[in-house]
Amino acid sequence: MMHSFTDLIEQFSQQFNHRHFPETPKRLYDAAEHILEIGGKRIRPILCLMGNELFDTIHPDAFEVGNAVELFHNFTLIHDDIMDKAPLRRGKPTVHMLYSEPAAILAGDVMLINVYEQLNKVQSRYKQKILSVFNKAAIEVCEGQQMDMDFESMEPEEVKYEDYVNMIALKTSVLLAASLQMGTIIGGGSEGNQDHVYAFGKNIGIAFQIQDDYLDAFGDPEKFGKQQGGDILVNKKTFLLLKALELCTSSQRAHLKQLMATSPDDKVAQVLQLFRDCRVDAWAEKEKERFQQIAFESLENIAVLSARKKPLMELANFLLNRQQ
Amino acid sequence: MMHSFTDLIEQFSQQFNHRHFPETPKRLYDAAEHILEIGGKRIRPILCLMGNELFDTIHPDAFEVGNAVELFHNFTLIHDDIMDKAPLRRGKPTVHMLYSEPAAILAGDVMLINVYEQLNKVQSRYKQKILSVFNKAAIEVCEGQQMDMDFESMEPEEVKYEDYVNMIALKTSVLLAASLQMGTIIGGGSEGNQDHVYAFGKNIGIAFQIQDDYLDAFGDPEKFGKQQGGDILVNKKTFLLLKALELCTSSQRAHLKQLMATSPDDKVAQVLQLFRDCRVDAWAEKEKERFQQIAFESLENIAVLSARKKPLMELANFLLNRQQ
Repeated sequence: MMHSFTDLIEQFSQQFNHRHFPETPKRLYDAAEHILEIGGKRIRPILCLMGNELFDTIHPDAFEVGNAVELFHNFTLIHDDIMDKAPLRRGKPTVHMLYSEPAAILAGDVMLINVYEQLNKVQSRYKQKILSVFNKAAIEVCEGQQMDMDFESMEPEEVKYEDYVNMIALKTSVLLAASLQMGTIIGGGSEGNQDHVYAFGKNIGIAFQIQDDYLDAFGDPEKFGKQQGGDILVNKKTFLLLKALELCTSSQRAHLKQLMATSPDDKVAQVLQLFRDCRVDAWAEKEKERFQQIAFESLENIAVLSARKKPLMELANFLLNRQQ
Repeated sequence: MMHSFTDLIEQFSQQFNHRHFPETPKRLYDAAEHILEIGGKRIRPILCLMGNELFDTIHPDAFEVGNAVELFHNFTLIHDDIMDKAPLRRGKPTVHMLYSEPAAILAGDVMLINVYEQLNKVQSRYKQKILSVFNKAAIEVCEGQQMDMDFESMEPEEVKYEDYVNMIALKTSVLLAASLQMGTIIGGGSEGNQDHVYAFGKNIGIAFQIQDDYLDAFGDPEKFGKQQGGDILVNKKTFLLLKALELCTSSQRAHLKQLMATSPDDKVAQVLQLFRDCRVDAWAEKEKERFQQIAFESLENIAVLSARKKPLMELANFLLNRQQ
């Protein structure tokens, strides 16, 4: 009997939601616990459990690796929030705001080392492979973060669309893909199946990010739960903005650049109108579908009975149709 | 034929001193390379090679682990320099000064992940043990750094001497000890011998740190190559200061506290006189000898022919008699 993703979230949380670190040194470990208490969707460990269950009943190692990827994700949140000087995360003060930047740097570091203590618990027959898949993704996450910071300091027209997609893939999708792959390794999936599973996770991740950008601009704020046009207000480089600059006429581009430079009161409404005029809203829906399509083809290609793919299909639909 | 430590430094540097990271993202990896180019004594990897050669000819894995501990040490330097807001290291600009704090945080992170790529190369028969010894030390280094930061914000009389020794051991000595132990594991040393080797490394490290504090105050600046009394000028908590506060009379303590609060022009000379008056100089020499003694007893206890211990003995003498 396969588990639904809500079952798996429940199972994972039961063993994850406890204190992970010793009591002392108090500032170090309280800072580390703080980010874990803020919580989150625990989507990466669930992918690891699902990757395992695609091929075999869930092995305890999938929980160990799930713990590792969730700790790693939280390590990136602590350090990214320092780099971005973010005061809040999910409405709560970030670690560096509560405990100082040095304490937050160190809390992230000790969390990253603990990731490898978790990974060291898996069976030795696939330890090397798991470590290698994990390290590749972890390095790519850092590279994506650096690219993101590099793009920050560039004019939006200087950022090539394909480089932006690559940055998003590294920063947000490869860890989803690697979580699925590590689960697959534990479940005994072949190398070919590992590749399909990885491609599924990576492309779902990119499609999700395009949707996220779309909803920030065009979503119903009541259903989406965020201020509409938040990205537009701060001139954030998004799929929509970069593509709009590519699609629009030179007079539209001049108008868009002027709105970004001057931020008038009706900036969001004006930018949204420009986005609609150059049809970037329709483009985004198609672009999301394109990556979704690649993801579902990869899912098709996994050589197991299609009934076993149902939870992954459900999770993908949940992630990619949030507004409905 | 055993190698001298100068031989080993040469061998290690030949395979370590090259570019370690890809070309792009440029800012990320140039920042990481910068700290490696600043150089250093490479003492930790040499200890790993020596731990191996104490029991057997050097296995290539000892170089992999040596690379890992040297990368880890450099990761700690990048992040410690951010935390301490240090502008210079070995007379060169620190990574965060050259590349910004966010880039330095990220460069440290990616270096730490690469540590585990190195460790993943060792033979699977001892991979779990090596990872476990390494992780324990790495976590302790973070704990020591947090304790050091906690002590910074305390009055010197509030810091207990034994807590200070423990902090120094965690921050500076356990990685030396673990480097030796990992070499010993690769060389096939028994658990008992691993313990002796570890105790040797740890106590040599503490003795070295006491000597370092002593030389900063009482060393010949010409031979030692540093400004005399640099620690005293910035009221740094050292073995000498903490013990002086314990040994001195209440009027001497008041005088010392006043010198620390007011920093007169002849502060160094006056503090040194106080140190001599309460005999903390003689105490430091004895305290260093005490840890040295424990180290050499541990070396004695290692169950191999004493001829094999010669390079370790030489290294210890080199580290602990620098001023002679």
